[in-house]
Parts: sequence; C-alpha cells; structure tokens
Amino acid sequence: MGTIDRRTENVMEILPDTDTARDALEHVRRIELPAIFNHSMRTFILARAAAAATGEEIDLEALFVACLFHDSGTSAENDGPQRFEVEGADAAVRFLHHRGWSPERADSVWEAIALHTSPGIAERRGPIVRYTRLGVRIDFGVVDLLPREFVEATESDYARLDIEQVLRTAVVQQSLSRPEKAPFGSWPGALRSAYLAETNHDGSNPTR
Amino acid sequence: MGTIDRRTENVMEILPDTDTARDALEHVRRIELPAIFNHSMRTFILARAAAAATGEEIDLEALFVACLFHDSGTSAENDGPQRFEVEGADAAVRFLHHRGWSPERADSVWEAIALHTSPGIAERRGPIVRYTRLGVRIDFGVVDLLPREFVEATESDYARLDIEQVLRTAVVQQSLSRPEKAPFGSWPGALRSAYLAETNHDGSNPTR
Repeated sequence: MGTIDRRTENVMEILPDTDTARDALEHVRRIELPAIFNHSMRTFILARAAAAATGEEIDLEALFVACLFHDSGTSAENDGPQRFEVEGADAAVRFLHHRGWSPERADSVWEAIALHTSPGIAERRGPIVRYTRLGVRIDFGVVDLLPREFVEATESDYARLDIEQVLRTAVVQQSLSRPEKAPFGSWPGALRSAYLAETNHDGSNPTR
Repeated sequence: MGTIDRRTENVMEILPDTDTARDALEHVRRIELPAIFNHSMRTFILARAAAAATGEEIDLEALFVACLFHDSGTSAENDGPQRFEVEGADAAVRFLHHRGWSPERADSVWEAIALHTSPGIAERRGPIVRYTRLGVRIDFGVVDLLPREFVEATESDYARLDIEQVLRTAVVQQSLSRPEKAPFGSWPGALRSAYLAETNHDGSNPTR
C-alpha cells in the first residue's frame, strides 16, 4: 500500500491488519479536513491506550472505525439534514454494511459516533462508546489519564492544526444554512448559540 | 387498590395489568411534583396512541415504565450528581432490577429515559426510545400527530399545571448547586445557560 506512510504504519501495528481498517483510514483521510483526520487518528491511539491501561477487553477494529468516522459528519460528503454526529454514524454503518458486519457489531460503532458529544450518557454505554468519547476528551485535554509524553507523541505524529477552531467552525458552518442540524440541547446547538451570541447574529466569521 | 382513582383506571385499561405497572405508577406519583407526574402520564398515553396509530408492535409495560420515570431524575429522591436524565434512567433500572427484569429489557428503558432529551438520536434507537421521546414532543406541542380532541382529553384527565415552567425550574434548580448536572451540549446545559443569560448570572428566580 504505497499510500500508507510511516505514521500510519505505526498505527497499523496496533490495529488488526484488516482490509476494513485500511479502507476506513483511506476513506476518512480522503473526505475529511486534515485537522479533523489527525484528531480522529489521535482519538483512536488515545482511546486504545486508555482501554489497554484498564485491561478492559475491546473490539479494536470497531473502536478504530468509530474513532476514525466520529467527526466524518463534518465532511461535505456527509453534510445531510441530520446533526453531524448522526450523519457520521450513518456513514460508518453504511461503510461497515458493505463489508458484511452484523447489525449488532455495527450498532456499537453507530452508538459510539452518535453519542460522542453526549456528556454523561456515552460514558454509561458499552466499551466502544465509552472509549471513543474518552479518546476525544483526552485529545481535547479535558481528561488527564495518560502520560504526557504519550499524548505529545500522538501530536507529533498527527499535528493538532488548530483542531478546536477547525471543528467548531465546521459544525457551526453546517448549521448556518440548516439550523435543524443544531437543535436546542445538542452540542452543535450549543456551539451555534455561542457563535450567534458573539457575533450578535450577523452571521459573519464563524471561526471566532 | 383504593389509591387508584378513575383517571388511573382509564390508563390501566390500556396497560398490562401487572404489579410492575401499578407499583411504577404509585412510586412515581409519590416522588414527583404533580405537574411532572401528570406530564409523565400524558406522555405514556400519547406515546402509546402514536405507536398504535402506526401499528408498530411495542413492549407496552416497558414503554409505561420509561414514560413514567422519564423525568424522575428531577425528584429530590433522585437528585444525584449525574444529569437528571441519567439519574432517572438509573432509578428506573433499579426499580426493574428488583422486579426481576432482564438487563436487556431494562436497558431499553434506560436508553429511553437517558436519551429523551437528545434530539435526532432518540428517534434513531428502538421503539421504546423513539416513542417515549415522541410522547414527550406531542405533549409539548412540538409534534402534531394525534387528533386534537384526543390530546385535549389527556389534559383534561391530567392537568398541565404549567408543566413547561415547572420542569424547566426543576432542572435549572438542580444545576445551580451542581453545575456538573448541566454540561455544555446537553439539554440541562442549554436550560441553565438560557436562565443565567436572562438573570445576568445573579442566580435569582429560575422560573423566569
């Protein structure tokens, strides 16, 4: 696979070496902004390390697909009418359906992606759901669970590229033309409200 | 059962006549504010009618417990550290565990309660989850699916008692001493933010 570079080889070493994992990586790299792709790779590496630290058994291939696709609803390809978490969850399940995964196994990935922005709920579901959200939170510095040098190594391999602002902008941008993607009481809704409050509803610069 | 009144008899006619259903009703009536109890009864009646209208098969006893307990996290008895949806879901599962329900059957109730404020996600889970949220939305007038006279009859049997304000106040009040119950990107978080914005953060009158 000529397109798999050194950093990816490192990741593939901790992955089941399957066509599904490699295809997921190439697919998500193709459709996502680099900052969001890098965040997704770090999320998997961190989630996997957190699971390993607790000794909890986990379906690593499902965890990889969940982490890789977790923000794929922000891509132009998946910019449908639903909130981005659900669009991303649906995209992952379509991907897995074509690869013959059972509905039950694919559902853990759906739930992990759909709930990754649901505080206090994702933490109470199965391991794929819980560790996907934990990986996201470690990467955003909200949870301090892993050695600092380990976290920094993921950022050295997969640069942050201002992910916080890039992700916020992507989610808010989608909601400007389709407010139904950011309902009251959702994470996209909270981002949209914060954005509109700051800009006094004039719709300019969603990156602020 | 001397404590079961006429209105309740009407509801019991559409319910499996089980100890679990009767105990759930008495338990929730005991711990909840009347406005919230009435809303929960209407939610079940509306959810059940919506399911009947589509002809979809549904575990009515599970739907009843989910609807009855869906806001039970707002009660003083269940005012723990988690967001009220999850406290209510846990309370329902404790109740069902003591009555010998399988973890799988009880989990549909947990998910229905935990996700009833999660727009776009609850709608995509199983029938108990979907119809619980739909019942809530019909009762709050967001979805117009059932005949007006049917909805009005539920309000005649179970008065609204200013439910919108009572529920909002209950959720916000809990979060004033414990902000972690109202995280960013959650429904309690959105209610809390709206409240704090209106009061200029002075913490007074959460009913406005």
